[in-house]
Amino acid sequence: MSSRRAESFSDGVFAVAITVLVFNLLSIARPDQVVSYHLLLIAWPQYAAYVVSFLTIGIMWLNHHTMLSHVSRVDRVTLVINTFLLMGVVAVPFPTALIADNLAATARANVPASTAAGAQVATVVYGLVMIAISIGFSGMWLYLAAHQESLAARPIRPPRQATVRFSAGLLGYIIATLIAAFVSPGVALAMYGLIAVYYLFEHLPDSAEAADAEESDLAGAESDGG
Amino acid sequence: MSSRRAESFSDGVFAVAITVLVFNLLSIARPDQVVSYHLLLIAWPQYAAYVVSFLTIGIMWLNHHTMLSHVSRVDRVTLVINTFLLMGVVAVPFPTALIADNLAATARANVPASTAAGAQVATVVYGLVMIAISIGFSGMWLYLAAHQESLAARPIRPPRQATVRFSAGLLGYIIATLIAAFVSPGVALAMYGLIAVYYLFEHLPDSAEAADAEESDLAGAESDGG
Amino acid sequence: MSSRRAESFSDGVFAVAITVLVFNLLSIARPDQVVSYHLLLIAWPQYAAYVVSFLTIGIMWLNHHTMLSHVSRVDRVTLVINTFLLMGVVAVPFPTALIADNLAATARANVPASTAAGAQVATVVYGLVMIAISIGFSGMWLYLAAHQESLAARPIRPPRQATVRFSAGLLGYIIATLIAAFVSPGVALAMYGLIAVYYLFEHLPDSAEAADAEESDLAGAESDGG
Amino acid sequence: MSSRRAESFSDGVFAVAITVLVFNLLSIARPDQVVSYHLLLIAWPQYAAYVVSFLTIGIMWLNHHTMLSHVSRVDRVTLVINTFLLMGVVAVPFPTALIADNLAATARANVPASTAAGAQVATVVYGLVMIAISIGFSGMWLYLAAHQESLAARPIRPPRQATVRFSAGLLGYIIATLIAAFVSPGVALAMYGLIAVYYLFEHLPDSAEAADAEESDLAGAESDGG
Repeated sequence: MSSRRAESFSDGVFAVAITVLVFNLLSIARPDQVVSYHLLLIAWPQYAAYVVSFLTIGIMWLNHHTMLSHVSRVDRVTLVINTFLLMGVVAVPFPTALIADNLAATARANVPASTAAGAQVATVVYGLVMIAISIGFSGMWLYLAAHQESLAARPIRPPRQATVRFSAGLLGYIIATLIAAFVSPGVALAMYGLIAVYYLFEHLPDSAEAADAEESDLAGAESDGG
Repeated sequence: MSSRRAESFSDGVFAVAITVLVFNLLSIARPDQVVSYHLLLIAWPQYAAYVVSFLTIGIMWLNHHTMLSHVSRVDRVTLVINTFLLMGVVAVPFPTALIADNLAATARANVPASTAAGAQVATVVYGLVMIAISIGFSGMWLYLAAHQESLAARPIRPPRQATVRFSAGLLGYIIATLIAAFVSPGVALAMYGLIAVYYLFEHLPDSAEAADAEESDLAGAESDGG
Repeated sequence: MSSRRAESFSDGVFAVAITVLVFNLLSIARPDQVVSYHLLLIAWPQYAAYVVSFLTIGIMWLNHHTMLSHVSRVDRVTLVINTFLLMGVVAVPFPTALIADNLAATARANVPASTAAGAQVATVVYGLVMIAISIGFSGMWLYLAAHQESLAARPIRPPRQATVRFSAGLLGYIIATLIAAFVSPGVALAMYGLIAVYYLFEHLPDSAEAADAEESDLAGAESDGG
Repeated sequence: MSSRRAESFSDGVFAVAITVLVFNLLSIARPDQVVSYHLLLIAWPQYAAYVVSFLTIGIMWLNHHTMLSHVSRVDRVTLVINTFLLMGVVAVPFPTALIADNLAATARANVPASTAAGAQVATVVYGLVMIAISIGFSGMWLYLAAHQESLAARPIRPPRQATVRFSAGLLGYIIATLIAAFVSPGVALAMYGLIAVYYLFEHLPDSAEAADAEESDLAGAESDGG
């Protein structure tokens, strides 16, 4: 199958999954309740969770695109890995809701987040989902790099560098999850946010950019590959 | 109509339908409840149902694409069959929710799944929806194969083989549904999962692959057909 | 703006709107209730409403595509009309839910649908939404036909015939809505279904088909226009 | 990355976000309640909020497309700004629900909207979200205009005019929000609607249109740029 079509289906799934996050916000608006600034302010964990998860899925989309931009065809195994990857991405609104609901309850009850049982469980589950998705990304990247002769339009230049970078994200999520379980859910949450911000500015060059850097005079021929 | 546009609309519907499955998970997260590992563990039927239905819809997308890759145009009848097919695919989250809710209730009440009335009804309904979708796929395939002179870009080579394979899936779902009704919902559920896993690795070659296998030197000309 | 891009956004909206219909089915599955065949059977108005609205939106997508296939560019007014058209299409799940809920309540209470107040209100609202959408389609078609010099790639041949056909649909919905208000909601519902089935098999030729019929030897050049 | 792909993902997000607005309407239809004309009429704030937000997101999509039509490539910073922009667009159904619910409650209680606390909070929050999105649009436009040498296919002609126009929208939302906070939520709501209607008919020329106006004999070459 052409990788373009797998990308287009995946794009649709990413677009819907990122939009589903708004349903967590919609649960703040209740038909039978007069809204007040106070009510909206104590719902801050909802907004924080929305922002972190939105950035996270947005970056995952970008990484997904970048990975597939290196290949022109995908085989059966790639599609199976991709399905599992999307299964993780689509699930992200679930741990997001867990975190938002439990941090909000913790805030209302004036319990510090570091000792509340619900907040701890929620941040651990969030971390586990992120770890599963990171493994999916690393697995897909390793598979694509190993089969570049049959799948890629031209040799993938920096596979080692990219592998290191994906593994760094995985390691970051493992550490944050351990912190959520044994130290403090609040610190773990901040780390999830920081990992997202870090990836906003640090990333895998996509195939066209990598080529541009070396052979900028061939840029015209790349236009449909980027 | 060009088959490319029917595919693009269908892709959108598949992408949304597969993402709607997360709403079943979202129902586990309740704003007024402190989450605990125990609460999350006893919700295992939700995760199992999510995984099975996600794989199932993912594979249906793949089969749908494969079928349409054999033709370059679609006529009115194809579009009508396709609408009924999508009607079944979009409905999948409904029996998925039935199964998840009723298996969860069964698990909480310590009733074995094989004797619980709700679990039996839910797995039978799930099977009936799958049978309806399978009939849709078989019907569409038979129609496309019978009208390949007007619709296909070039002769579809292995129609008999593909017909057998689609019929095998239909037969599998019929047997599993009968088991759900008269033997055990748990066994039926496992069969639904196994059928999905089986199709992950066994499938119709798409038109470009079929061509590649025979005339690999013409691969360049296939790039926009795959 | 190229009409291709307006189509692609509209396709996305149609794909999501048609999938939102499944949320009416999801409301049948309740976490706290053991499902039974009886419970599922008395929910038949939900399935009927799902099928009718799914077919209706599917056909609207087809008509929308057909209309836009006649033009290669869209101007500002077309986009404004299109936005109002989509506003109606996206709203379809709302009267669908009204009908399903109120017919179900009527069925449970053993009140004949023709005398139940809720069923009457719901079918009238459904009809009004359909009338609004039909007016949008007719308006868009008249506008495109009137501005074909600047928008269409080549003259639109059968504008009169198409106008008649769109008006027939509008007339059908007006009659059905009047029947819903003054005679019987049940008869009106059946008419909504029949209008959908009628349009499944009767439609505007799209630009490529119209051309094929006359100049079949030029079919190859049409492939990117369909 | 090619701007075409960023557009395609953004289009998907816009299409889902605009469709999510129907969930506010769905909350009017309650399974356990017989619907009546009275019940539907007093829900008018729901329809008003639906129409205003639908038009607003529809126009945002148009402006988004217009902006990106000026460039052929997007860099990392553009994608980051775009992610924040989409984060605002996806959130629109939330303040829409707040407004609809609180105006409806105000209407039921016969309290004038200008003195009701809930209506005031809701319209202020709506305005704040619109201001945030407007800042995102202005920021993205200024960034694209400033980096047109590396991103645009050809010089962007009227950047000053466009900047003024985007700023006018931002200013309009700031004034409306202040009115919501200190004068009357009802007046503010009307202003949100008027800003949407104004933008329906006034807009940035897209790159192809701008070119057409000057060099209409080159229109054929523009067809893939629009």
